[in-house]
Amino acid sequence: MAGALLTDLYELNMAASYLRREMTAPATFSLFVRRLPSERGFLVAAGMEDCLEILAGYSFEESDLVYLATLGFDDAALEAFAGLRFSGDVRAVAEGRIVFADEPLLEVTAPIAEAQLVETILLNQITFQTTLASKAARCRLAGRDQVELVEFGFRRTQGFEAGLAAARVSAMVGFSATSNVEAARRYRLAPAGTMAHSYIEAFVTEIAAFRAFAEDLPGRTTFLVDTYDTLEGVDHAIEVIEELGLHESVGVRLDSGDLAALARATRRVLDDAGHPEVRIFVSGGLDEHSIAALVEQGAPVDAVGVGTRLGVSADAPFLDSAYKLVSYDGRPVAKFSEGKATYPGAKQIFRAHGLVDQLGLAEESAPEGTESLLEVVMAKGQRVRPSDPVLSLATARTRFEADLGALPEPARRLRDPTAPKPAITAAVARLTEEVRQRER
Amino acid sequence: MAGALLTDLYELNMAASYLRREMTAPATFSLFVRRLPSERGFLVAAGMEDCLEILAGYSFEESDLVYLATLGFDDAALEAFAGLRFSGDVRAVAEGRIVFADEPLLEVTAPIAEAQLVETILLNQITFQTTLASKAARCRLAGRDQVELVEFGFRRTQGFEAGLAAARVSAMVGFSATSNVEAARRYRLAPAGTMAHSYIEAFVTEIAAFRAFAEDLPGRTTFLVDTYDTLEGVDHAIEVIEELGLHESVGVRLDSGDLAALARATRRVLDDAGHPEVRIFVSGGLDEHSIAALVEQGAPVDAVGVGTRLGVSADAPFLDSAYKLVSYDGRPVAKFSEGKATYPGAKQIFRAHGLVDQLGLAEESAPEGTESLLEVVMAKGQRVRPSDPVLSLATARTRFEADLGALPEPARRLRDPTAPKPAITAAVARLTEEVRQRER
Repeated sequence: MAGALLTDLYELNMAASYLRREMTAPATFSLFVRRLPSERGFLVAAGMEDCLEILAGYSFEESDLVYLATLGFDDAALEAFAGLRFSGDVRAVAEGRIVFADEPLLEVTAPIAEAQLVETILLNQITFQTTLASKAARCRLAGRDQVELVEFGFRRTQGFEAGLAAARVSAMVGFSATSNVEAARRYRLAPAGTMAHSYIEAFVTEIAAFRAFAEDLPGRTTFLVDTYDTLEGVDHAIEVIEELGLHESVGVRLDSGDLAALARATRRVLDDAGHPEVRIFVSGGLDEHSIAALVEQGAPVDAVGVGTRLGVSADAPFLDSAYKLVSYDGRPVAKFSEGKATYPGAKQIFRAHGLVDQLGLAEESAPEGTESLLEVVMAKGQRVRPSDPVLSLATARTRFEADLGALPEPARRLRDPTAPKPAITAAVARLTEEVRQRER
Repeated sequence: MAGALLTDLYELNMAASYLRREMTAPATFSLFVRRLPSERGFLVAAGMEDCLEILAGYSFEESDLVYLATLGFDDAALEAFAGLRFSGDVRAVAEGRIVFADEPLLEVTAPIAEAQLVETILLNQITFQTTLASKAARCRLAGRDQVELVEFGFRRTQGFEAGLAAARVSAMVGFSATSNVEAARRYRLAPAGTMAHSYIEAFVTEIAAFRAFAEDLPGRTTFLVDTYDTLEGVDHAIEVIEELGLHESVGVRLDSGDLAALARATRRVLDDAGHPEVRIFVSGGLDEHSIAALVEQGAPVDAVGVGTRLGVSADAPFLDSAYKLVSYDGRPVAKFSEGKATYPGAKQIFRAHGLVDQLGLAEESAPEGTESLLEVVMAKGQRVRPSDPVLSLATARTRFEADLGALPEPARRLRDPTAPKPAITAAVARLTEEVRQRER
């Protein structure tokens, strides 16, 4: 889905005015999150790949202009829109990196009309993808690498687009599979799935359903055992496993009740029957807290399916993101409204060991021993690297692993985390004061 | 966005098994919400139009089958998928109707493989659109028809698709405009938009920005007055209004601070300057509770922009929806698991005056004085009425108004609402007991 009308009307209003006035000087906008939700100690940057795709193809179609004419945009505006492409530069934090409040996830420098027009698109994609990636990362922390994580959210994400993104960003933070088939195809993820209760009910007995499934889908037999009575279901599964001599990747899935207790009882029954190889998969309304509880209790769970609460980031479904003008025509600008104050100027994030960050100006040289997080990803409207959905996900995953390993404990906590705040460099402080004086 | 791979893998697993076994008997699945979120006294049905579009075009493409082969689906399965279309019947509650827990929003009757395959698609669309429509309806209640409501969520919805749906369902419950230009085009809504703080900052002074905007976009001049100092901003707006002799639809927008107090101060300044015609528009992190507070305080606000919290239904971003098999091959079925029990058989909702509902069987005749809410919308895979996005929205809006007028007070409350629960008819009770006995 793309198209230049996927925007807020005010972007078109402002752009029309700029274009008419030939205000073509470069503007820099900075996209960042003002405050983290209280239950977030960090964010995982995501959405940049889709943004670059959209920017690279940005243009108005004839039918868009016809519609805009009906809204009262005049010929001069329509003509200017007709020829408009995104010709700017973009610097961005790479997907998969861990970031904090106030840190620019992306900065656009372009003729002001262009930079303004893409605000809604960029905010939308980066806000919701970063929201979902950050939630998924908390599930990853909760699992302590002791359970396999499978993304199961598609049926209740806020649309298909959100479902595809949820699968992708979950993989980025270490999920091993997704139920979402289209996402699996697109991003070369491992698709995973078992059966629904309806399948069991479509047969006259549970055991008949298990037998049919195992015969028809060899090599992917995870039996859903809780349709009638969970432990009886486990017995039925064992019967079919033995009858058909199933060996490879056999499992049972528990989807209701006290999952920790049932997992323990199920494990005992399976082991007693001589089936230590049968895996236990649990699902049903899970989130990072219930995953953590399962792991802490030492429940014998091999894999968890995490669905809705991850898929919509249920406890914090949005971020307080902003896209703010920080420089126009060489003049640094800032806003000083209460609670919404911004720092002027194009920025850079200087990161030292242990994710200790400083927010500096883009023109500063990096302090010794620091890495600069924002990198040029688009120059004069052209992507610096070609689009490659599979490779970009793999590298994002690697970056996430590295940052996660360095993330301090207070930020990792699932309850009441403390998010690091970047210090600002002396140059940012000086420039902010200068702009504040000038605005007085 | 469509495509048969927009699904969970398990749907394909089950369908492949059914098709191989020639289990083609009709199954009925019922889509309903098990429990309402605690802060919801009612739901507004939405998403059905998109579901019907998807069902009418449902098919596997060659490239889908190529991918499924790589997952291990065998030739028999692929061949069966290749020719598959949705050939079933669909009964649904009309969009815009107010509904409650346990009430089917949609029922599908089709050969079991087809009915199963579309589960993920139907759940996804109806869950998230009903979620957003219900949130928007609460904003409508909060406004008490004393303020105009404008949907502003696009920049932080969970994707573009969600943004389009948010605009549409907001219009369905009485919003008068949206900032989303593509949604406005697609559903013929009124697009609305003013300017951003960046526009003000791109000019050397606030008044220069106001003057430029008013000159360039006559007839849509709402001045954003809070970039520097709100009441000074109002003075600047008045200066430009008088200088340029602006008359029609002029307004000021307040986007930060104590909106009620600022609105009162702004109204006073405007009135004292002889400009009672200038409207006051407020925005900034609003939801139903802050709208209600503004209205209760009698703040002189003409219109509110409602953004993110509506656009993601921030306090309740999903619904506990389910798609359950209720009948297969003439045999009613049900699940009795704890907390997830379902009633067997195809259903009907019989509604009496005041939204007093009974959940009955589809085969029952409607009790006197009741209306039957589920209507046939698709027969043998064909839509009963042709698709018409504009007309369908207009009729949904009318239906919502009627139901809203009849909604009892406890369900309308914004805090701690009490949602009506439908009674079940004697026939449902009897069938449930029969099935329970049989399953023992």
